[in-house]
Amino acid sequence: VITLLTDFGDTDTYVGVMKGVILGINAGVHIVDLTHRVPPQQLVIGALALRSAVEFFPKGTIHVAVVDPGVGSQRQPILIETPKAVLVGPDNGLLVPAADRLGRVSLRQLENDRYFRRPVSQTFHGRDVFAPVAAHLSRGLAPAEVGPVLDTVVELPLRAPRSSPGRIDAEVVYVDHFGNLLTNIDADLLNDFRGAALSVSIGTRLVGNLVTAYAAVPEGSLLAIVGSWGVLEIAARNGNAAKMLAAAPGMPVTVALD
Amino acid sequence: VITLLTDFGDTDTYVGVMKGVILGINAGVHIVDLTHRVPPQQLVIGALALRSAVEFFPKGTIHVAVVDPGVGSQRQPILIETPKAVLVGPDNGLLVPAADRLGRVSLRQLENDRYFRRPVSQTFHGRDVFAPVAAHLSRGLAPAEVGPVLDTVVELPLRAPRSSPGRIDAEVVYVDHFGNLLTNIDADLLNDFRGAALSVSIGTRLVGNLVTAYAAVPEGSLLAIVGSWGVLEIAARNGNAAKMLAAAPGMPVTVALD
Amino acid sequence: VITLLTDFGDTDTYVGVMKGVILGINAGVHIVDLTHRVPPQQLVIGALALRSAVEFFPKGTIHVAVVDPGVGSQRQPILIETPKAVLVGPDNGLLVPAADRLGRVSLRQLENDRYFRRPVSQTFHGRDVFAPVAAHLSRGLAPAEVGPVLDTVVELPLRAPRSSPGRIDAEVVYVDHFGNLLTNIDADLLNDFRGAALSVSIGTRLVGNLVTAYAAVPEGSLLAIVGSWGVLEIAARNGNAAKMLAAAPGMPVTVALD
Repeated sequence: VITLLTDFGDTDTYVGVMKGVILGINAGVHIVDLTHRVPPQQLVIGALALRSAVEFFPKGTIHVAVVDPGVGSQRQPILIETPKAVLVGPDNGLLVPAADRLGRVSLRQLENDRYFRRPVSQTFHGRDVFAPVAAHLSRGLAPAEVGPVLDTVVELPLRAPRSSPGRIDAEVVYVDHFGNLLTNIDADLLNDFRGAALSVSIGTRLVGNLVTAYAAVPEGSLLAIVGSWGVLEIAARNGNAAKMLAAAPGMPVTVALD
Repeated sequence: VITLLTDFGDTDTYVGVMKGVILGINAGVHIVDLTHRVPPQQLVIGALALRSAVEFFPKGTIHVAVVDPGVGSQRQPILIETPKAVLVGPDNGLLVPAADRLGRVSLRQLENDRYFRRPVSQTFHGRDVFAPVAAHLSRGLAPAEVGPVLDTVVELPLRAPRSSPGRIDAEVVYVDHFGNLLTNIDADLLNDFRGAALSVSIGTRLVGNLVTAYAAVPEGSLLAIVGSWGVLEIAARNGNAAKMLAAAPGMPVTVALD
Repeated sequence: VITLLTDFGDTDTYVGVMKGVILGINAGVHIVDLTHRVPPQQLVIGALALRSAVEFFPKGTIHVAVVDPGVGSQRQPILIETPKAVLVGPDNGLLVPAADRLGRVSLRQLENDRYFRRPVSQTFHGRDVFAPVAAHLSRGLAPAEVGPVLDTVVELPLRAPRSSPGRIDAEVVYVDHFGNLLTNIDADLLNDFRGAALSVSIGTRLVGNLVTAYAAVPEGSLLAIVGSWGVLEIAARNGNAAKMLAAAPGMPVTVALD
């Protein structure tokens, strides 16, 4: 399986072209679109979207992600090996949160142009570098063949929540299609509070205690839940919390013991 | 073949995650997207879209549909067996029009959690229940293994047209991407009128007699036709009838003998 | 591999239905979406999008394209054979630029209804003619079996740039998802100017000399480049040139020796 995540949208043929290149190298691979609707050049949104998906794919999956404001500059193409998957894309932080979710084994620069499409353009490494390398990997190419080991890769400046006794100060990091507001509070962080009466707030608005299902509140009401991303989210039952709250990434979220 | 129809949109990775779960169970299956742009929680639109597609898939196809305002409540996950296909999704009426199009053989509750992804979240049964059950079915799991037979399932309150001698009173039920207005008049209902001179009207506007091709009227003109959904539709040749008429689901449509 | 390019959008099940028909005939084929977001009935945009993609697919690919304002009229369904691929769609010019990119070998009318889905509707040849013929071709059907050779096909009135010594007068022909402005100047046309100092202008605005990477200019600046389509494009580094310039297809572009 090869997955693709880009900011290429769905009006042009750029994604289709990447698939053509892949199928020309490995006609037997399954290609799955994660999303191509990352807003142009929005690395954080792309990185969070990629992280949300990788654990659900079978062992051996190759994830290709291309949100690449630095294409044609000095930024390097890289590969991150994890126990369950290999990630391929630009060295701009896009791959890192997903790699950390799975556990990093090794970092490599994509240097061996034997596995590139040639000539390599300066505008479309998705087609000329990342897609063909991924296709070769899916045919069994060892990660060690693609290029030298790197010590470090670029990290995104993702803000972590601040924890203090009985309280977490966090924020909205992603708004999904339903208007659900995903925060940067991983489920683990809430373990200390398990079973306690909590006040979850967003902005100045009190949402209430954590619930375990959308159906725990009346239609249209706000709720706080550990949802399908495995993070605290603020949602509205069969409604759109983002619209109700005029919320966007960056809006503060607080969890406090009652 | 497994098909997917949801209201998940295309900006997030929810659909991709369902595919990851499926391919982790059956790496050899073809997955086809029907649409993921059902408006959030709009069961009738989802049900009509699903019904429009199922007859065109090969025998043995498994259709997974997830428009699921009741996820995490008491609504049951179900399976409907038909001669040609198996349908999997929530018991909220979404599957029923498609199942009736193909002919229902049996109804079952999805109860055997051996075929679920565990733990089962209360927010994403598409990933944890419907996708894995569909994947197991595609590998040959017998429908009888998923859970007990049900006597009844929830039905949607779809409005049927009212027929009287020489006249049908109906309505628009779906507006497609081209602005074509699909009605609830199945082609069969028009058999009584075959060959007769008819007046098809929408709202207070007379459209005229049935035609057999868009090209039967001048560019931009309204027309009434039995189109690719197998129902009476009001369209505009190379134009957008919904915009021309400011039409939406619920708008009355009348067919009368001239 | 079968590719699909249409103006069907992504809200309805029309594309899914075509895939169901294809998989019912050949369950072993890879289906790749090029795009379904061609604006309704916009043949030129569809033709340019198709041309941008075909060279990147493996030999033997079958490309199906359906932007079909003349469905149900006298326009013929056709096939164009090229050394690398077969193209299937309506005879309205949609396939021709892509076929010319690959080199035309033969033109045929789709006439042998043995390979159609029957009955053939007058509204959806994508489902009833093009998809099933493509599926049969992917199983090895010889192009000669589909119908008689044609001498000519309909061509689109694509405007060519005007070349004079030291100068090319051209125009924007396509605006992509990033707001990049693709022109009708193929890279070949610029060979005469290789290495020279050039002034590229759009409308009344001077963009400057050709660059070889987006990163050659500061963030947000306009640039002229031979991009991934293999044509001259006007872009803005990590910005949206179409919005900056309020540009659309038809806007004049000039290349002149300094």
